[in-house]
Amino acid sequence: MSTTYSYAAQSASSPLAPYEFNRRELRADDVAIDIDYCGVCHTDIHFAENDWGMSVYPVVPGHEIVGRVSAVGDKVTSHKVGDLVGVGCMVDSCRSCPACESGLEQFCKDGFVGTYNGEDRHDGSITMGGYSDNIVVSDRFVVKVPAKLDPASAAPILCAGITTYSPLKHFGVKKGDKVGVIGMGGLGHMGVKFAKAMGAEVTIFTRSKSKIAEAKKQGADHVIISTDEAQMTAATEQFDYLLDTIPVQHDLNPYINCLTFDGVHILVGLLEPVEPALQAGGLVMRRRVLAGSLIGGMPETQEVLDFCAEHGITCDIEMLNIKDINTAYQRMKQGDVKYRFVIDMKSLKA
Amino acid sequence: MSTTYSYAAQSASSPLAPYEFNRRELRADDVAIDIDYCGVCHTDIHFAENDWGMSVYPVVPGHEIVGRVSAVGDKVTSHKVGDLVGVGCMVDSCRSCPACESGLEQFCKDGFVGTYNGEDRHDGSITMGGYSDNIVVSDRFVVKVPAKLDPASAAPILCAGITTYSPLKHFGVKKGDKVGVIGMGGLGHMGVKFAKAMGAEVTIFTRSKSKIAEAKKQGADHVIISTDEAQMTAATEQFDYLLDTIPVQHDLNPYINCLTFDGVHILVGLLEPVEPALQAGGLVMRRRVLAGSLIGGMPETQEVLDFCAEHGITCDIEMLNIKDINTAYQRMKQGDVKYRFVIDMKSLKA
Repeated sequence: MSTTYSYAAQSASSPLAPYEFNRRELRADDVAIDIDYCGVCHTDIHFAENDWGMSVYPVVPGHEIVGRVSAVGDKVTSHKVGDLVGVGCMVDSCRSCPACESGLEQFCKDGFVGTYNGEDRHDGSITMGGYSDNIVVSDRFVVKVPAKLDPASAAPILCAGITTYSPLKHFGVKKGDKVGVIGMGGLGHMGVKFAKAMGAEVTIFTRSKSKIAEAKKQGADHVIISTDEAQMTAATEQFDYLLDTIPVQHDLNPYINCLTFDGVHILVGLLEPVEPALQAGGLVMRRRVLAGSLIGGMPETQEVLDFCAEHGITCDIEMLNIKDINTAYQRMKQGDVKYRFVIDMKSLKA
Repeated sequence: MSTTYSYAAQSASSPLAPYEFNRRELRADDVAIDIDYCGVCHTDIHFAENDWGMSVYPVVPGHEIVGRVSAVGDKVTSHKVGDLVGVGCMVDSCRSCPACESGLEQFCKDGFVGTYNGEDRHDGSITMGGYSDNIVVSDRFVVKVPAKLDPASAAPILCAGITTYSPLKHFGVKKGDKVGVIGMGGLGHMGVKFAKAMGAEVTIFTRSKSKIAEAKKQGADHVIISTDEAQMTAATEQFDYLLDTIPVQHDLNPYINCLTFDGVHILVGLLEPVEPALQAGGLVMRRRVLAGSLIGGMPETQEVLDFCAEHGITCDIEMLNIKDINTAYQRMKQGDVKYRFVIDMKSLKA
């Protein structure tokens, strides 16, 4: 195939910079995609900078990919040239374990193959992500992007969106439920939109009074300042669900006490470990549940895109020239983005 | 009413000793019960010795009560004189909050009134438990003991039984599920019987090889020695449910890793706080759930007695003369009972 243009990190300490490589030849089940947009997820930074000690360089990040099909393998029937499609966090899995057979590829017993920095199950090569002008992905891991959605704003649905939609759906949020969303970043603001669309009464928990207006603008019915003890006490046993999007260590206990009996506290971030220590009584005395959730399977990734199209939901984005990616990373580290950077891939060739 | 004979602790440091007091006159909804048997729960020790700093003396413990109805109030229709009945951990609640209206009185928003050391909602008196020859309880909190059950062995079902039956039922254990029971004491051995009766394949986790034969005798299909790293590693992602009955701090992480995706780790003990610290990744990466559970509501307390009658389940007990209660407490502290002491109340008058 022709050269693929991308941005890559060559080491943990080097900034992202232009990098050229070749995508694989199409396999029978492959879909080749010309990438139009790619969202920038905090996980991208963790891999570029080797925060988790598992990066294999060069790292081409990006797993919120939207583009057009440019070619398909011989056996592909689900997608055709010209289709607007998306690729999220996964590009392969074993496809035969109980999780894969349930469409929960994210829990594949072999581990799913990540869209970048994963190991291809056929040739052992390291996968390269969406900060690039094209990608080749097996059809099972390619979803259709509904025409109603703005393609750029739809890109983050493939990670930030599915990560928040999936647990709300799985754990049963329904009309009239009281849902609290903890944190108001890329994940949190999507969580608010989904919970509202599911008919819930939504409260944002935020540390700062300065975010009240913004929280209301995002559709929250109520705002609780989590640093205000009186407000937290008043919230005792008031919530059916809490969607906790805070990606760093924090005390779960005051939040768990805000759940009614049978309430569910959903973690989507890796706070390792949970400190301050969890109080078991918070769970036992009210039959509450502390649950984790990880992205979503492929059928549900399609479902969330369709749900977004039906309910007019997209991510709030700031369009990014890929040449500014390193500045964008710095801003993200400071929480300075509302709410997701999306790379306009035209900027790669400009 | 006539004098009630009992055993009470007069202070945190005094042994239990004979104590006389008067039960209240029957209210319209009250049932008076002549107590035949009362199980001895570890919670009794915590209250007698003021381990939780909330005891009000004298403490008459006992919340696994079986006896015969001796009189009923004017408006009681559900029970009649001569019926074999039981009283568990609760004797009252607000009866009007969402939890009470759902038959989940254990989660009453006002807090349920404990069978002992609770505060009566009408006259503010402190409730006195089942280490006594009779008790007066509002009809809603009195259950029927099926004739098929041995009354003495049925007594612990009212606490140890419901505590383990309720979460297995609530969280959906069904035929073919793989259930691990952690710990093999009063709660654990009941958990094994229930999970087996529900059709599950049951494994006991125990620290000691010396308990393998006993675990098999209790009906466990398999035994895992939790201190054997190789066995724990082999158990990775093998279980749908873990019923954790260990009442002291322990590391939850190795157990959580034994759960399959969507697996549920159920806590029924207050390990305060959870240390070593919980790894959030154990939940997030496999959408696992850490849940708590507390006894069960009144409808479910009746249900578990009926379930036991249907499946021929009772608790393994050692019959106790109430004069030996202090020795029994010492033995319980050393884990030396298979699996529950039950006081034969005839010994009170002997």
